[in-house]
Amino acid sequence: MDIATIVGTLLGFGLIIGAILLGGSLTAFIDGPSVLIVLGGTVAAVLIMERFENVIGGFKVAMNAIRSGRTTTVSQTIARIVELSSIARREGVLALENEQLDDAFMAKGIRMAVDGLPEEEIVHTLRAELVSMRERHSRGQKLFKFMSATAPSMGMIGTLIGLVQMLQTLDDPSSIGPSMAVALLTTMYGAIVAFMLCGPIAEKLALRSKEETARMIIIIEGIEAIVKGQNARIIQEKLEARLAPKEREEQKAA
Amino acid sequence: MDIATIVGTLLGFGLIIGAILLGGSLTAFIDGPSVLIVLGGTVAAVLIMERFENVIGGFKVAMNAIRSGRTTTVSQTIARIVELSSIARREGVLALENEQLDDAFMAKGIRMAVDGLPEEEIVHTLRAELVSMRERHSRGQKLFKFMSATAPSMGMIGTLIGLVQMLQTLDDPSSIGPSMAVALLTTMYGAIVAFMLCGPIAEKLALRSKEETARMIIIIEGIEAIVKGQNARIIQEKLEARLAPKEREEQKAA
Amino acid sequence: MDIATIVGTLLGFGLIIGAILLGGSLTAFIDGPSVLIVLGGTVAAVLIMERFENVIGGFKVAMNAIRSGRTTTVSQTIARIVELSSIARREGVLALENEQLDDAFMAKGIRMAVDGLPEEEIVHTLRAELVSMRERHSRGQKLFKFMSATAPSMGMIGTLIGLVQMLQTLDDPSSIGPSMAVALLTTMYGAIVAFMLCGPIAEKLALRSKEETARMIIIIEGIEAIVKGQNARIIQEKLEARLAPKEREEQKAA
Amino acid sequence: MDIATIVGTLLGFGLIIGAILLGGSLTAFIDGPSVLIVLGGTVAAVLIMERFENVIGGFKVAMNAIRSGRTTTVSQTIARIVELSSIARREGVLALENEQLDDAFMAKGIRMAVDGLPEEEIVHTLRAELVSMRERHSRGQKLFKFMSATAPSMGMIGTLIGLVQMLQTLDDPSSIGPSMAVALLTTMYGAIVAFMLCGPIAEKLALRSKEETARMIIIIEGIEAIVKGQNARIIQEKLEARLAPKEREEQKAA
Amino acid sequence: MDIATIVGTLLGFGLIIGAILLGGSLTAFIDGPSVLIVLGGTVAAVLIMERFENVIGGFKVAMNAIRSGRTTTVSQTIARIVELSSIARREGVLALENEQLDDAFMAKGIRMAVDGLPEEEIVHTLRAELVSMRERHSRGQKLFKFMSATAPSMGMIGTLIGLVQMLQTLDDPSSIGPSMAVALLTTMYGAIVAFMLCGPIAEKLALRSKEETARMIIIIEGIEAIVKGQNARIIQEKLEARLAPKEREEQKAA
Repeated sequence: MDIATIVGTLLGFGLIIGAILLGGSLTAFIDGPSVLIVLGGTVAAVLIMERFENVIGGFKVAMNAIRSGRTTTVSQTIARIVELSSIARREGVLALENEQLDDAFMAKGIRMAVDGLPEEEIVHTLRAELVSMRERHSRGQKLFKFMSATAPSMGMIGTLIGLVQMLQTLDDPSSIGPSMAVALLTTMYGAIVAFMLCGPIAEKLALRSKEETARMIIIIEGIEAIVKGQNARIIQEKLEARLAPKEREEQKAA
Repeated sequence: MDIATIVGTLLGFGLIIGAILLGGSLTAFIDGPSVLIVLGGTVAAVLIMERFENVIGGFKVAMNAIRSGRTTTVSQTIARIVELSSIARREGVLALENEQLDDAFMAKGIRMAVDGLPEEEIVHTLRAELVSMRERHSRGQKLFKFMSATAPSMGMIGTLIGLVQMLQTLDDPSSIGPSMAVALLTTMYGAIVAFMLCGPIAEKLALRSKEETARMIIIIEGIEAIVKGQNARIIQEKLEARLAPKEREEQKAA
Repeated sequence: MDIATIVGTLLGFGLIIGAILLGGSLTAFIDGPSVLIVLGGTVAAVLIMERFENVIGGFKVAMNAIRSGRTTTVSQTIARIVELSSIARREGVLALENEQLDDAFMAKGIRMAVDGLPEEEIVHTLRAELVSMRERHSRGQKLFKFMSATAPSMGMIGTLIGLVQMLQTLDDPSSIGPSMAVALLTTMYGAIVAFMLCGPIAEKLALRSKEETARMIIIIEGIEAIVKGQNARIIQEKLEARLAPKEREEQKAA
Repeated sequence: MDIATIVGTLLGFGLIIGAILLGGSLTAFIDGPSVLIVLGGTVAAVLIMERFENVIGGFKVAMNAIRSGRTTTVSQTIARIVELSSIARREGVLALENEQLDDAFMAKGIRMAVDGLPEEEIVHTLRAELVSMRERHSRGQKLFKFMSATAPSMGMIGTLIGLVQMLQTLDDPSSIGPSMAVALLTTMYGAIVAFMLCGPIAEKLALRSKEETARMIIIIEGIEAIVKGQNARIIQEKLEARLAPKEREEQKAA
Repeated sequence: MDIATIVGTLLGFGLIIGAILLGGSLTAFIDGPSVLIVLGGTVAAVLIMERFENVIGGFKVAMNAIRSGRTTTVSQTIARIVELSSIARREGVLALENEQLDDAFMAKGIRMAVDGLPEEEIVHTLRAELVSMRERHSRGQKLFKFMSATAPSMGMIGTLIGLVQMLQTLDDPSSIGPSMAVALLTTMYGAIVAFMLCGPIAEKLALRSKEETARMIIIIEGIEAIVKGQNARIIQEKLEARLAPKEREEQKAA
């Protein structure tokens, strides 16, 4: 799991709790029914929008994407492809059959190449898999974006309920302040859920999906070049064009 | 009908009603004219925007999309196509004439193949049908998105009417609170209609349209491959690239 | 003219006026200067944005689009094209010269076909006309979208003017309420203009433009097929793929 | 310069000033520091965003686009191209060398044709110029859109500063009203700058850019047809497809 | 570094500080915990969204983009390419090996041309590098856009915390004003961070990325033309089509 995500979550909630404690006690900021209406209302809207199994699935995709600190860098992926291309040039594509490949996507492409499928068929199939991966990821993102847009609305509904109740019993002026304070809590909860949690997570999923896409595009390009029998140096040059200048230097140093 | 949609709707309204009852009685939150201005105003705006028959049509498309828990999974669709391709390879495309096909879209494509239409013509026609299906779905979504954007505006107009009336009769301070409470009800109704109902339904329709699109693309690809006379294993590999890894395992287990 | 548009407008304004009358008199809601600043300000912004003749033109396009309840359905258009294709197959494309065609766009395409222009030239020209039609429509929509975004801003400016004037003369507490009520009227007017009128009309124009586009695409496809000399049944199958399942049944029943 | 832009600006500010004078004096609405923070803050944000020379350039592009009421209509441009195509058919493309062409873009294309450059090269170069023109225009629009989004934010910052200062000195109740009135002025200024000026101008630039694009596309199509040696009537038919029906009638009448 | 960015930042903060000093002392506007919750909360949300190394990397890309006042103009780049194309025509592409090229991207393209790589391979590789550059830049922009959207939300959360605390202790009326003033500070800080800093910087990065893209497209087009052996005058004409009219005149004058 990203250390940054943990640090960010702790920092964010630490700051909010700290700011509350500086000005008084925490208990004034905790209200069961308010928590229920914001979280429950958001969950209810999500259930109206999505099939049950997809809600679970979306959360899983999200958790995986957040946790899985992919251990191989793009540079390593490129190095592996260049290596495979040398072998294929020296000993033929069939020699790749015995190669140990950790990456399932790369393994699938190589297997199709070894099976002698035509180049366009391989590229078409791998691209279909890329598209399908992005669809799945985007479904997870959509879930969190939707919650990020819904939570503040639920907070507003909660606050309106509180305000209406307060306004109907204005007889006792001393209760106005505390009543309104409680009414505002749902708005605050909604904002925290949306802007401290769901919003950043949705963005994180989008970034992870982009990274994964970039890696898969490099693998597709690499396998296409291997099947075409291009020479290793050209493949390397072509794939490294997709690295940042800094990464390229690291690549050369390695 | 999705059980999740029912659960979500009940949960959402249950929470709102519960939150209201916790703080007082429900009657203070029910106001006929306020309901009328929010719901009626939203309906009026919809009627200005859309032809009468399309409003009805849009609701029907929406209800269908929500209800129809399509019983065949994508995996089953792929399995059926692979099966058809084996038959076509063994006995010729004409042999597909006798196959019983539950899916109308697949049936249309197979019938065109049996009729001997050229491959591009078949693909072109099926794609036109896909595009036209998406257009119809997007029209249903548009309806709900529009209502989701309009309801809060109607709520605001209602609240402004209430506020102006309240402000013009400030003589009796004791009536200020209740008047303002009633004025706020339209804003609350608008938010509930938009964020608990129309918004999530619009999103649901978008997701259903995407699912249906994915299924139709697989059928188009499959029929194209059958007409080309590709072998069943390659077709299977190609189509399964569009499944999630988990679904693919289920596929193999089946 | 769409009956729904009239019904919607009457319903919307009826509800608003009804809600006002329920709580008091209508006169409190009518304020000349407030009307002027919202409507006049919106018109002023439109004039800054668009050439004078285009404002008039945009309104005309809009009024036409709203009024012209096109009398021929897509099904009828398809039937006519299929009929023309039969004639062209039997008697040659030149025989189409004597056909009476009500639709100007279809007539133009057929005339070019009769003149013996090459297929690509015909399609290219018809598509250019389609693009130019959409441009004109989108310019009308833009006008209404812009007004829908501008009217609430003008309302806000009016309210701010009223608030500033009220705040500078707080001496007489009894005048605060009515002054603020008047200040809020511009916000209300802006919301009504935007959300009850301009917004729905802009959406209606977008939908009409889509319908017209769909019809023109069918005509272009049909004429292309006629020039290619395709057979009537295939043309019918191809064009009907663009109909909704229900329309297709009506087609067959006819 | 568009008469409508002047009329719109005068009308807009006239209405605002009129509304102010109806309710009191204008001096209460003029506050130097408030003007400074809204205009100055917006300029500051623009300077952070854009290079100095581009800010100047963007304003120039904008002023040019607003002023230059292009005197040749699209119909005239088409007529000129059709004329040139007749000459080229009769006397050869080289005969176009002596034609007097007011439009620099058309002149460039004709010159390349006279120089005997291949058709694709000419089209490619003219399209590159079109793209570069749109880039420049979009940079001007961006400037005004950015200001339109920034001015209300600066207004809000100004109002917050005023509110904080007012809230810290609540001792003298008589000063609350006027202080708050002044605080609201920045919000009002921001709204006027954004919704009466920068917003409409940004839209105007977008529309002008579209018009210019349409004209350049017609010229590119026309020159391509001339180089191909197409006949004048076909060229006319093709180009007129891009006119509105009304313009086409005017064309014929001419 | 852009002088305009420095001037803009100083002007913006100078105006805000000036406006504050005009109405009282600066100390009332400085509140440690408020600064912490806005800045800290924004940083926390960023950390949840992005990997730690990418946050650093994004800031570096941003700082580079802001600082690096690229010293070569587009005109100079075109002139250099035209010069190289003359040499290549006279002495062959291999003669370019000895040319001193300051621009790393141009150097890479020329080196591939000297190495005799096929034209499509060179263009494909350079385009991949262009895409990868834009991805990196867009990641930096995303960071600042995200902060620009998050800071006001954090300000709102801070204000809600302050309001709730104030409302719960309404006993002492004299403390209401100052408490609310402090509560509003976070909203003000959030607006300043978003609209005076992060927003304009995100826009600046987008503009820089566009400039860099334009330059790289010219280099790719130029190298493609050199490899094709096109003549220098045609290359110049083609590339200059991408300049603004004014720049073109400067080019000729030079």
